[in-house]
Amino acid sequence: MEGYTRQLARFAVHSRPGDVPSEIRHEGTRALVNWIGLPINACRHDTTERAIAAFAEFSGPRQASLLGRSEKLDIFKAAFINCIASCIADYDDTHLATVIHPTGPVASTILALAEHRKIAGSDFLHALILGVEAQCRLARALAVAPAKCDAAWFLTGITGGIGAAIAAARLLGLNEQQMVWAIGAAAARASGTRETHGTMGKNLVPAWTAEEGLQSAFLARQDFTTSDTILEGPRGLGHLYTREANFPALIAGLGEHWELTQNAYKPFPSGIVTHGAITGALEIAQEWRPDPGAIRRVELEVHPWCLHLTGWREPRTALEATFSVYHWVAVALIERRIGIRQFSDTCVADPLVVALRDRVEARPNEAFTRDEAMVRVRLSDGRLLERHVAHALGSSERPMDDAALSAKLHDLADGVIGECAAGLLAERCWNIERTPDASVIVAAACGGGEG
Amino acid sequence: MEGYTRQLARFAVHSRPGDVPSEIRHEGTRALVNWIGLPINACRHDTTERAIAAFAEFSGPRQASLLGRSEKLDIFKAAFINCIASCIADYDDTHLATVIHPTGPVASTILALAEHRKIAGSDFLHALILGVEAQCRLARALAVAPAKCDAAWFLTGITGGIGAAIAAARLLGLNEQQMVWAIGAAAARASGTRETHGTMGKNLVPAWTAEEGLQSAFLARQDFTTSDTILEGPRGLGHLYTREANFPALIAGLGEHWELTQNAYKPFPSGIVTHGAITGALEIAQEWRPDPGAIRRVELEVHPWCLHLTGWREPRTALEATFSVYHWVAVALIERRIGIRQFSDTCVADPLVVALRDRVEARPNEAFTRDEAMVRVRLSDGRLLERHVAHALGSSERPMDDAALSAKLHDLADGVIGECAAGLLAERCWNIERTPDASVIVAAACGGGEG
Repeated sequence: MEGYTRQLARFAVHSRPGDVPSEIRHEGTRALVNWIGLPINACRHDTTERAIAAFAEFSGPRQASLLGRSEKLDIFKAAFINCIASCIADYDDTHLATVIHPTGPVASTILALAEHRKIAGSDFLHALILGVEAQCRLARALAVAPAKCDAAWFLTGITGGIGAAIAAARLLGLNEQQMVWAIGAAAARASGTRETHGTMGKNLVPAWTAEEGLQSAFLARQDFTTSDTILEGPRGLGHLYTREANFPALIAGLGEHWELTQNAYKPFPSGIVTHGAITGALEIAQEWRPDPGAIRRVELEVHPWCLHLTGWREPRTALEATFSVYHWVAVALIERRIGIRQFSDTCVADPLVVALRDRVEARPNEAFTRDEAMVRVRLSDGRLLERHVAHALGSSERPMDDAALSAKLHDLADGVIGECAAGLLAERCWNIERTPDASVIVAAACGGGEG
Repeated sequence: MEGYTRQLARFAVHSRPGDVPSEIRHEGTRALVNWIGLPINACRHDTTERAIAAFAEFSGPRQASLLGRSEKLDIFKAAFINCIASCIADYDDTHLATVIHPTGPVASTILALAEHRKIAGSDFLHALILGVEAQCRLARALAVAPAKCDAAWFLTGITGGIGAAIAAARLLGLNEQQMVWAIGAAAARASGTRETHGTMGKNLVPAWTAEEGLQSAFLARQDFTTSDTILEGPRGLGHLYTREANFPALIAGLGEHWELTQNAYKPFPSGIVTHGAITGALEIAQEWRPDPGAIRRVELEVHPWCLHLTGWREPRTALEATFSVYHWVAVALIERRIGIRQFSDTCVADPLVVALRDRVEARPNEAFTRDEAMVRVRLSDGRLLERHVAHALGSSERPMDDAALSAKLHDLADGVIGECAAGLLAERCWNIERTPDASVIVAAACGGGEG
């Protein structure tokens, strides 16, 4: 039987845009609309600024834009910067079964490429879909069951470069063997640790996957050889990262079943595993509007991963607060809505937020699904406000609709490029399939209208 | 107690060149002399050419030389290219206890930096020593025992970037916190798989560590934050890569005991675990000069890792032959000497070599040390030529002396830059501590004399 790596590569080389069902193409478009506001919003975040300051003097030909800004960098560094910016608020997408965030590495990579060579919108979307699909399937194969995929690995760092490489290789027109090598190169150092969480460094993990993925495609184009069996080989990713990989899941029903449909868009800028509890807190806040000062205690029951990944008690910055379910539940109860404005150091230091956060308690419930939560708000007058959340807002079961995604884009981008440009950007993303030149997305994302 | 990452960082920041004993400084110089010929020799290898072809058009300011060539690239890409070239022949150095190859990522990185800013030779050597020392100690901490460090991990990929980052951070004058962050950034995606072995992709693993390590230092200089506990934290490298890390070994006796002394220089261009068998075969060939055609069978006993890592039966290229102990034992018996000329696809395809290779058998001996070997050559006339090798040539017990390292440099570089330039290069390397500007090394390595 042919190797799994080669089967994946063959699919990626031979799939045609028209082979992808229209509802999947629409889902890919939704992934783009969900993501595109993020690098714009964070284009002047300290994380982004410091990375640009570190690298700009070493940039090659300034062909590729930094979304939301006027500068350009070489395509590798632009992919890196746009990806790093897009990850900062933890507000991107999540393949819930594996907790990877697949769009960032791929979209950053192919947007940079779209300024290097002319790419039709339909090909751009197709490459995005292939790169995201490959990542979700690979993550499935590696994360057979939660117990087998230690939560200390930052799985996006393992899969991201491979998705980026596949998308870029596709757009560079590589043949099947070159596609295998592109995957092999991108997987050579595929990894990532969650020890970086809560720091700027967390965002390095996906950002370097974008850069290395793009480089991998250019290497493969030169027939730079690497392993033909980097995924399934005896020393490949399956062996390294699992006790037993499920590679049949990598290739089963390719082109028929789309794992992309299991990719969820975040309504809140925080770790996905907080979303069940946030949903419950928001619903309680909106229904009963309790006075935060009158809340004696908040009790949460959550999936164990919620505390494992986002159990930080005393976050000091917005970067850290991403990993604090206590913080976000307090914010939800106080603000009664959550958007990008709540992702700020000011909000994290707000005495009202801190005081309520300290009154939030949580315990794991092994029987819960990952986005399930029970939220109990006990008031000083003895009343109990209670909400069981079977599925979080933004989950596959309660997805953000197209209008909500457009609203998210505006929430993220209006303050940077203006409402008009953000509207144009949304329109161009929704119409990506029909544009002859995908770089018009970039032009709009930088606040201009010219393609 | 302070974290291990911070203790390592503090040492790297506060150590002064004069604190390092002269014999250790000499050992660092030997590491440089051993290594410097490698990127020169391989500067036009297909692997190098294809990587340059992939990346040159995206280069930033062309400040840093590609050793052996006339072109320059930006410092990140030059570090990448020089490191990748230096790894191709598997002829660099090896910390035998952990089988990492520490000099490549560090030397490539700081040579590029030496063309970006003026660096005194003594500081250059000091940074090299700190970067190599950190890697060897980290590898010790992670590879507690062979059983705990699965040989599928390419440990150089885990440690290389950290060594490169420490060396570069030192030369950029970073403070202690920035040094911690530089380590944290370089470790964020630290990894590598040996599934790449036998292909050009094997060399991507160390090459990317050089580039990311250098980038990590520049990020940290901008106060780009990352974990303070990337090594010992609950989701750090110790947790990810070992069942139980030995972090005390990382910091015990820093500045007093030097793990650098356990770094061995290779006399043969092949995987280090083949060297015991090659030594035995060479000694038999040189002592008894058997006619290769009269050799009926060759029987090897070797450490299990020799077969695990270099047990390839039918290598097709020099890149693959690196991992074939059968091939190299045959070459040793036929050629009676081994140098860089034997690292060639022609040699691998030589019918005489192939025929003898197919008559070599090997079995693991659990009781052997890693560089121990028993070689038995059975001749058609019934004679048995036998040699037990307690320690391989090039091991810590039978190290290459300074003259042998100079000869290796000439063997590698004469054919590319000429004997005269190679001699000048050797002289400058041996005198590195006394030069006010380390970039004179680069000038000589590119065939010029001007610093």
